[in-house]
Amino acid sequence: MYTVDLNADLGESYGNYSIGNDREIIPLISSANVACGFHASDPSVMLETVQLIRKSGTTGIGAHPGFPDLMGFGRRYMDMSMPEVHAMMVYQLGALDGFCRMAGIEMNHVKPHGALYNATFNDMELAETIAQAVKDYNPALKLMGLSNQNLVKAGASAGLAVRHEVFADRAYEDDGTLVSRRKEGAMITDTKEAVSRVVRMVKEGRVESLNGKDISIQADSICVHGDGEKALEFVKEIRRQLEAEGINIQTM
Amino acid sequence: MYTVDLNADLGESYGNYSIGNDREIIPLISSANVACGFHASDPSVMLETVQLIRKSGTTGIGAHPGFPDLMGFGRRYMDMSMPEVHAMMVYQLGALDGFCRMAGIEMNHVKPHGALYNATFNDMELAETIAQAVKDYNPALKLMGLSNQNLVKAGASAGLAVRHEVFADRAYEDDGTLVSRRKEGAMITDTKEAVSRVVRMVKEGRVESLNGKDISIQADSICVHGDGEKALEFVKEIRRQLEAEGINIQTM
Amino acid sequence: MYTVDLNADLGESYGNYSIGNDREIIPLISSANVACGFHASDPSVMLETVQLIRKSGTTGIGAHPGFPDLMGFGRRYMDMSMPEVHAMMVYQLGALDGFCRMAGIEMNHVKPHGALYNATFNDMELAETIAQAVKDYNPALKLMGLSNQNLVKAGASAGLAVRHEVFADRAYEDDGTLVSRRKEGAMITDTKEAVSRVVRMVKEGRVESLNGKDISIQADSICVHGDGEKALEFVKEIRRQLEAEGINIQTM
Amino acid sequence: MYTVDLNADLGESYGNYSIGNDREIIPLISSANVACGFHASDPSVMLETVQLIRKSGTTGIGAHPGFPDLMGFGRRYMDMSMPEVHAMMVYQLGALDGFCRMAGIEMNHVKPHGALYNATFNDMELAETIAQAVKDYNPALKLMGLSNQNLVKAGASAGLAVRHEVFADRAYEDDGTLVSRRKEGAMITDTKEAVSRVVRMVKEGRVESLNGKDISIQADSICVHGDGEKALEFVKEIRRQLEAEGINIQTM
Repeated sequence: MYTVDLNADLGESYGNYSIGNDREIIPLISSANVACGFHASDPSVMLETVQLIRKSGTTGIGAHPGFPDLMGFGRRYMDMSMPEVHAMMVYQLGALDGFCRMAGIEMNHVKPHGALYNATFNDMELAETIAQAVKDYNPALKLMGLSNQNLVKAGASAGLAVRHEVFADRAYEDDGTLVSRRKEGAMITDTKEAVSRVVRMVKEGRVESLNGKDISIQADSICVHGDGEKALEFVKEIRRQLEAEGINIQTM
Repeated sequence: MYTVDLNADLGESYGNYSIGNDREIIPLISSANVACGFHASDPSVMLETVQLIRKSGTTGIGAHPGFPDLMGFGRRYMDMSMPEVHAMMVYQLGALDGFCRMAGIEMNHVKPHGALYNATFNDMELAETIAQAVKDYNPALKLMGLSNQNLVKAGASAGLAVRHEVFADRAYEDDGTLVSRRKEGAMITDTKEAVSRVVRMVKEGRVESLNGKDISIQADSICVHGDGEKALEFVKEIRRQLEAEGINIQTM
Repeated sequence: MYTVDLNADLGESYGNYSIGNDREIIPLISSANVACGFHASDPSVMLETVQLIRKSGTTGIGAHPGFPDLMGFGRRYMDMSMPEVHAMMVYQLGALDGFCRMAGIEMNHVKPHGALYNATFNDMELAETIAQAVKDYNPALKLMGLSNQNLVKAGASAGLAVRHEVFADRAYEDDGTLVSRRKEGAMITDTKEAVSRVVRMVKEGRVESLNGKDISIQADSICVHGDGEKALEFVKEIRRQLEAEGINIQTM
Repeated sequence: MYTVDLNADLGESYGNYSIGNDREIIPLISSANVACGFHASDPSVMLETVQLIRKSGTTGIGAHPGFPDLMGFGRRYMDMSMPEVHAMMVYQLGALDGFCRMAGIEMNHVKPHGALYNATFNDMELAETIAQAVKDYNPALKLMGLSNQNLVKAGASAGLAVRHEVFADRAYEDDGTLVSRRKEGAMITDTKEAVSRVVRMVKEGRVESLNGKDISIQADSICVHGDGEKALEFVKEIRRQLEAEGINIQTM
């Protein structure tokens, strides 16, 4: 029996600004990455998001910490020192955890957001700092990162349980990193192709790179998106196909 | 044997901006009210502040949540809805608690900051919302508020342990509220007078109001300030006199 | 020949967060109130908004300054001192003006946003401070405020040209103030009724209050909204009816 | 007759947070770089700073725009897009200019702050974007940048008047860039040596690099600091020596 986790970023609204379809996406996924108020979200949104997830009953909750840059939605790299990264991780984990504890649910995992996630691809010190912060805060938390890359390596070295994340809609380089969005062929836009790639990642642990090379990949969790009607349809299709292939979808 | 707590606000620096004499004031007080990143402080300052308090060994740590207004240092009233206040309380408690848990110390109390504290004097609904948030977050936390006024009343009604706070350097109205700083005689500037008033509050539970009326007051904790050389001297003098009067200073 | 101005708030997006239908509403109005980065908007949004308005060719541009509270969208009253209000007005006027000057268009008017606008109803000192800031920045700017109330009174006293604003979708008290949204009957939801009220305000300078009293009102500019398909339809209907009644719509 | 400009960053306080000795430093310099509310300062500080400079009568005023990162004081590089940089430059120039125009003084120059300044050393596109923003805003503004490096090159290409800046307290590499603070010998701590280096830069247009090479450098303006008693003493000493050497200190 195969098992995989479906994760999505949510709780990204802010004050009067609404984003995403949290109510629709939560029942379709098994892990929710919840923004913590730095790159998106505010206390009221966090409270409401945690309540929504709690009611779903089947979705694991994770922290989705990001750079302190609401204007850039955490997508702009910021050259913070490692102690600053460590402290801002703990702050965001604690803030979200407060709402979880109040709701009587346990925080399950941590996945860095946007530029903080991407910057680890080429910065092992940053990956290690993030892993150390998670461990220092709560060593029972699982650390999610790009399959086989720095974050999961740093997490494993620190003694954390890690979860290898794959992307259904992104092409891979030969070394298992993501093809830059600026390169042609970076996005897998055909739903059928995306799904069959994901199925193979889960069942065989392999995927074809952009160059046509067959590479090894570990698929603990599949990242999906919840913004827009089309994205929701895509998630539903992935669920259908995974289940049809006998792959069980559940929280990691 | 009489006992009283000495509390001060600290951890109020932010990024490149330094404020206060935290290293000097911590050994002199028994309770520290630590800013949580909304009206003052940032994650790095919070981490460092919690470490300083942990090392002191004798100072209880409390959360000092405030309005989300760094520019106004939390001293400008903001007309937030009750659900917004509730959520922002939980956020700030959780954020500070993260650093406490990481440091292996337990958060002891909560004291709202600035305009959030002052606004409760005439707004019982706000006081009740704050008390409810503290209770929802962690019912073992003590709520500190102006002696005999709304915050401690709301806390007690909610079933929280409460701590009645008095001010050494402020005059009182007949009803036990603080004399507005805009009124003449609002501040007690003479150290000797301030200390003797405090001693009487602790020993007799009474203080003379600005109008010369002898009123009842409960002094669980005395608020002192740590900014500036003069403030530190004042705290030292209060400690000396309290001890000379046989009053034990310890965390509530 | 009658003339009236139609104004709407816009340029309220922020970073990754989108709000409003600026492209659709701009051609329908004659005055745009543009957010200045405190309660909404960011530099990139402001640049784009000013460009959109410049291209329209017929819409006057105004500054729409608000409280420094993005999380509350400027709808929460903040107890700022008068010098703070004065300085924050000048800052926001200057910031928007920079984009206007770069685009080669002249800023035409100023209308405070949300809680800053509403707070003037009962606070003449605040209204005077806002008027003084506008005058100190550029005495050629027109100040828009609720018809016959404090802002326009303060503006006129300061020697500014003022514009009396009326609301198509709001009921009025006997004294010409707006009926609180919490009261029944506060909103005029019937388009036909709203339009006929507006036509009478423009032509006769009178409106029926919620209590049925016929009161005097000056209608220089009508506030409309651009969020949502329904709002756009409402604006189109108002335009049609005003034109059918021989009322010319143009920038004040 | 030799002439040079002395410039310093100021107006960097924020709300309750004070930094710098603006009152003391202003009479000692000929150009003030004033923070614009993104990496430091707020509207009230900007208003007060502009008033102080206006009263001095002899100090030119310039904008000191920075990254939108108050927590990091603009010292952390942020990976913004070029259109974002362009818009945030115009916003900050406009905001400060508002206070200048209100005070009846003309803004003289622009000098980017911290990481925004440093990032241009290796990023010509960023330098060109900054220069273009200054030109788009007001082509009469002078652009100040590190002597002979990208900012002044980009400014000159864009047709702006430029000012070559040198540092009294920093060592130079052979190519005229600053020695990284992480390298030994990066700082010139001896006042006498610093002054004699500066005098030679002004009179001969040359300085000895860290490697002992004699390199060409253009010294239009010397950057000094105003934080701390020692810094003020250093500025006074530089002034004394420059004047003793017959070098006139005045706004560029």
